Amino acid sequence: MGFNFGETLRVQIFGESHGEAVGCVIEGLPTGMPLDLQKVERFLSRRSPGKSNISSDRVETDKPKIISGLKNELLTGAPLAAIFENHDVRSGDYEAISDTPRPNHADYAAFVKYGGYSDMRGGGQFSGRLTAPLCFAGACAMQFLEHSGVHIGAHIERIGDVADCRFDPLNISAELLADIALKDFPVIDEKKSKRMIAVIEAARDELDSVGGAVECAAVGLPAGLGEPRYYGVENAVARIIFGIPAVKGLEFGLGFGFAEAYGSYANDSMTIKDGKPAFLSNNCGGCVGGITDGRPLIFRCAFKPTPSIGRKQNTVNLKARENAEIEIKGRHDPCVVPRAVPAVEAAAALAIADLMLLAKPVFGGR
Amino acid sequence: MGFNFGETLRVQIFGESHGEAVGCVIEGLPTGMPLDLQKVERFLSRRSPGKSNISSDRVETDKPKIISGLKNELLTGAPLAAIFENHDVRSGDYEAISDTPRPNHADYAAFVKYGGYSDMRGGGQFSGRLTAPLCFAGACAMQFLEHSGVHIGAHIERIGDVADCRFDPLNISAELLADIALKDFPVIDEKKSKRMIAVIEAARDELDSVGGAVECAAVGLPAGLGEPRYYGVENAVARIIFGIPAVKGLEFGLGFGFAEAYGSYANDSMTIKDGKPAFLSNNCGGCVGGITDGRPLIFRCAFKPTPSIGRKQNTVNLKARENAEIEIKGRHDPCVVPRAVPAVEAAAALAIADLMLLAKPVFGGR
Amino acid sequence: MGFNFGETLRVQIFGESHGEAVGCVIEGLPTGMPLDLQKVERFLSRRSPGKSNISSDRVETDKPKIISGLKNELLTGAPLAAIFENHDVRSGDYEAISDTPRPNHADYAAFVKYGGYSDMRGGGQFSGRLTAPLCFAGACAMQFLEHSGVHIGAHIERIGDVADCRFDPLNISAELLADIALKDFPVIDEKKSKRMIAVIEAARDELDSVGGAVECAAVGLPAGLGEPRYYGVENAVARIIFGIPAVKGLEFGLGFGFAEAYGSYANDSMTIKDGKPAFLSNNCGGCVGGITDGRPLIFRCAFKPTPSIGRKQNTVNLKARENAEIEIKGRHDPCVVPRAVPAVEAAAALAIADLMLLAKPVFGGR
Amino acid sequence: MGFNFGETLRVQIFGESHGEAVGCVIEGLPTGMPLDLQKVERFLSRRSPGKSNISSDRVETDKPKIISGLKNELLTGAPLAAIFENHDVRSGDYEAISDTPRPNHADYAAFVKYGGYSDMRGGGQFSGRLTAPLCFAGACAMQFLEHSGVHIGAHIERIGDVADCRFDPLNISAELLADIALKDFPVIDEKKSKRMIAVIEAARDELDSVGGAVECAAVGLPAGLGEPRYYGVENAVARIIFGIPAVKGLEFGLGFGFAEAYGSYANDSMTIKDGKPAFLSNNCGGCVGGITDGRPLIFRCAFKPTPSIGRKQNTVNLKARENAEIEIKGRHDPCVVPRAVPAVEAAAALAIADLMLLAKPVFGGR
Repeated sequence: MGFNFGETLRVQIFGESHGEAVGCVIEGLPTGMPLDLQKVERFLSRRSPGKSNISSDRVETDKPKIISGLKNELLTGAPLAAIFENHDVRSGDYEAISDTPRPNHADYAAFVKYGGYSDMRGGGQFSGRLTAPLCFAGACAMQFLEHSGVHIGAHIERIGDVADCRFDPLNISAELLADIALKDFPVIDEKKSKRMIAVIEAARDELDSVGGAVECAAVGLPAGLGEPRYYGVENAVARIIFGIPAVKGLEFGLGFGFAEAYGSYANDSMTIKDGKPAFLSNNCGGCVGGITDGRPLIFRCAFKPTPSIGRKQNTVNLKARENAEIEIKGRHDPCVVPRAVPAVEAAAALAIADLMLLAKPVFGGR
Repeated sequence: MGFNFGETLRVQIFGESHGEAVGCVIEGLPTGMPLDLQKVERFLSRRSPGKSNISSDRVETDKPKIISGLKNELLTGAPLAAIFENHDVRSGDYEAISDTPRPNHADYAAFVKYGGYSDMRGGGQFSGRLTAPLCFAGACAMQFLEHSGVHIGAHIERIGDVADCRFDPLNISAELLADIALKDFPVIDEKKSKRMIAVIEAARDELDSVGGAVECAAVGLPAGLGEPRYYGVENAVARIIFGIPAVKGLEFGLGFGFAEAYGSYANDSMTIKDGKPAFLSNNCGGCVGGITDGRPLIFRCAFKPTPSIGRKQNTVNLKARENAEIEIKGRHDPCVVPRAVPAVEAAAALAIADLMLLAKPVFGGR
Repeated sequence: MGFNFGETLRVQIFGESHGEAVGCVIEGLPTGMPLDLQKVERFLSRRSPGKSNISSDRVETDKPKIISGLKNELLTGAPLAAIFENHDVRSGDYEAISDTPRPNHADYAAFVKYGGYSDMRGGGQFSGRLTAPLCFAGACAMQFLEHSGVHIGAHIERIGDVADCRFDPLNISAELLADIALKDFPVIDEKKSKRMIAVIEAARDELDSVGGAVECAAVGLPAGLGEPRYYGVENAVARIIFGIPAVKGLEFGLGFGFAEAYGSYANDSMTIKDGKPAFLSNNCGGCVGGITDGRPLIFRCAFKPTPSIGRKQNTVNLKARENAEIEIKGRHDPCVVPRAVPAVEAAAALAIADLMLLAKPVFGGR
Repeated sequence: MGFNFGETLRVQIFGESHGEAVGCVIEGLPTGMPLDLQKVERFLSRRSPGKSNISSDRVETDKPKIISGLKNELLTGAPLAAIFENHDVRSGDYEAISDTPRPNHADYAAFVKYGGYSDMRGGGQFSGRLTAPLCFAGACAMQFLEHSGVHIGAHIERIGDVADCRFDPLNISAELLADIALKDFPVIDEKKSKRMIAVIEAARDELDSVGGAVECAAVGLPAGLGEPRYYGVENAVARIIFGIPAVKGLEFGLGFGFAEAYGSYANDSMTIKDGKPAFLSNNCGGCVGGITDGRPLIFRCAFKPTPSIGRKQNTVNLKARENAEIEIKGRHDPCVVPRAVPAVEAAAALAIADLMLLAKPVFGGR
């Protein structure tokens, strides 16, 4: 259990790092919707490994193979299913360490949960590889959203102690989001990219890893999206975001900054602008009570450092029940954040698309 | 839509602030389980308003009326339904402001979503009053968890710029949690309570409000709880936590602190202790890959300041489509955090109990 | 578990026969929809007991008390919750038989399932009394459907060996359905009502009971309703219909008659009528592949005889583990079918409304 | 939407008749459970086409390719995904008829629903080919059930006017079910098989088709299985059974026979047998109130005749909006029932396994 989500837009992820393939099945997108596969692949290429010296050198083409649901690049109404075959698999890297759980990996928790039956080669079902089908599903959802004028984009908000500037919460354009998406290293403030890369390279050189954060925005959202309480925008985003490996925190708008704030400062005043209700600030991050209000939706999520590091670490041998040391070889990004950016966008797109498909007009269309 | 959650432990909340009653229906707790109603009511009294001069003076007894599912204080297997009747309702306080959305309240978003049909007296379905049935459901879940040796507790981690000390992440006892729960103002470090109360009173005196944060822990959890990816512990907690009004951030373990950390620091090493695998630190907050590993589960959530403040604020008149000012009278806590503590515990209990009821042993019981 | 259903129109039933009340919570109907409570009550009165000498003389007013979700007879968008208080409860009738399961009642299955914790007075959660909230929810769904031109109605198709005529499957008018609903004893062929009542009265006089069947139709349905395979019209109706006590069979169109038929006979030919595609017969009962095609939806369901009969029956004493005899006193309808007619309509309305709320237009509105 | 089901045992089906492949994803079976793939394939071979002159001569090996979730023939805890590649696809057979809906096929309903975007070659997502992944999932569920002593089997109960004898409802052995499963033409009374085959061959020779019914039983079920009302055994079976193409009716125990019966006849008396409560008959088909009671579960479902027949039929041309005639060539079974038998077993297995995984012991194990 655990690999499915969504109320009206349902997604089922499947696969293991070193199995035949990873993939997904999507139900609920509108029949007849065009799906631009080249655009999907461009999106997927943003998470692909093997592109630079700060990412894993596992090379997978990340080219989805459509199994069903698409004919002449139009959705047929059948479940949209796609798989990504696993090719560049080197199991040998992992076998030696199967009894010695890697710190901050799911190895130990999975060992207890699955009684050792889990196929933990390459991280098994916990592998970052499963963000490939998530990104596929998200790319499809983004195309759906774009037809409604909704655009989603994210940037690296922080790597270690280097922070990018944040979105201007009331002024985010679809163009800005598109520009960032084109960048090899997606930040707003170009000057920060070199410094961030330097932090990552230094971590790699020291056989270490480093954490970071991603900030994501959705613009063009209609007001009134989200169901109060447990199907709100925040709940829906959270449900999927915490399914991205290494995410350990999530905040909307001021987020944890609210904890230190006063109402007189934090409250977003309203005004009439061009004859319509508008806001003078966006501390709330675009939603109140779980419901959007026409402002950009803004959230940030924190990633822990890649747990796999080359340094010697203390662990245990589960069979021998004795202390052990571990030095992790294998192919690992010293920082997952750059490749996680599209996964965050995908999660946001899927959460928002689900809520849009769930939304009902009020009676009589008022 | 929006007031139900849970896979195996299903909860349906209902009610509006100024309707007949608020309530909930719970399915999935074990038939025959004793339910100590006095204990439930003691738990509920922790969120009750009207107890002190830093909370709203709306007085509701918060005494649940059991509709079905309980006989001789034992669960019968039928849905457990309970209602809280609404008595102390003063609609007059709200009627004047129905066309002028209160900043940072859901008023505007709800107006757009519901086309003005919503009963927004007292906040309607967005009211904090609906945490009463949430707490009822949570109190039932906590009794279920206690039979399995799981204990949940929370404290006020921050009010404005005053921070309590945090839980020692590897050493949290059920006794400590029980002690905190007995306090009128639940903090770990007693010295901080006066300072926090002073911050709240100052906010109230200045017709302002203030935000804060709550830290919550669950101890006694079995390792292996949670389903990977989208039904993990973090996902399940997040789904419900973001349903508590005013929550805008959530983090597990180091949370956003991970974003600035290196793997060599953040990784939790393991060791053999008393012949069993153990951890030397708990930066992960008790779960990796969404699955518990026997350490305490620890998370923090941030609350925005109460949006209702007495000061004059800029808003709009939705009917006249012109700018307006608003001074909110009514009865409001200047800080929601103290009364939100049991709601956070309830949310954690419901998420964890759901996962425990969903968990399946591995084949052959290995 | 077990008392909730629906994907987009979610219904949660609760209550026990001899508890405080029975009730339901409904999410998903359009905000702002008018709800005519008098019409709801008229519908509910059709299932009320105590009206004649062929039904139980337990008298309950069956008047719903709205808890939330309605203001000025318009839906507010909050969960619509209603309860029916239990008044006329005579537990004494049941206590004597708690150790001796009544044949064809759920007593024995419930005893094993719930370990004796269940409150089986009056049938507990298995009681026909819980069709009151089902009918309430169904009455609300019917008002929603009527705004879309969909009308649902049912008649007693059989009592023992007396059969009513069946609907003419291509020609069913909303007026016919409305006429039948007004009848005290809802049949198409008036001449049959006396004979059916005679069968029921004879059964009662002989301390016996008798089974029957109900035929239900929905007209005005759009073509294209229902999701293929597991959320089709047939699946959705079946899910709820088998939740009505005593239902043991369900068939659509020719139903079991198809098993003896040839394709050349059973296939419904098409023709152009008034410039539009139309059908020359309706053996399929209005849906193929789980999807409606504009013809009336028609199904029949079979009810077993009321298990409670006055005659001496063989059973066991669960405590003494010995054979026992039982003569059931209490208040029981000798035939549940007449009062079950509105429950069947309610089930159909809820299934269809759920599918209508779930339906998505094809891309671009084609 | 529409291709997923299950609460705790979740199944997602996908694929189209003439796409790349059909397949399924299953979550919820116990980690570490052995999965005998040869046994799965033997089960699948029972529904394979091309075996005899009374079935379609489309030849597909029906050999599943495992994508994830299995290692060394043990379930790993990851989603179990399998695909069946489509090889023997002859689209030409269908193209000519795309504008002329075939009577009793989903063509017209699908045309309206999907606006013509659906890939209807070979029936698309409505194809019987999608029972291959259903049978795969069911075969896995059956292996799970067998570990708990539950055995499921079905036989052809009727083809046209030839009826097999029915199961003796109190005396069905696992051996009997296994014996029937070995037969090429699964009936209880061997003498009937020739007569049934003759009916099918006659239909084929006359370019016609014929309907039938399947009777299915599950033995070894624990008492107390099923959740009352909407997750009962009957509801769960119905939800999946009506997802098998051509099923139009379903009845449990006496089923529609109850409608003509009296309580004094239909009630199943109890007795003490070998010191335990037992039943003297099984009219209820093994469940009351949706809950099993230890007797065999017995249901029958009716299948309509294959809609594709070679005879000239009246239909319409959707483009030209005029009457048309159709003679269906292609490869079609004159009767779907023989190949549907394993699909019925699969549906029953999946429904029952889901309920077993959902079941909770009463508090304290009483």
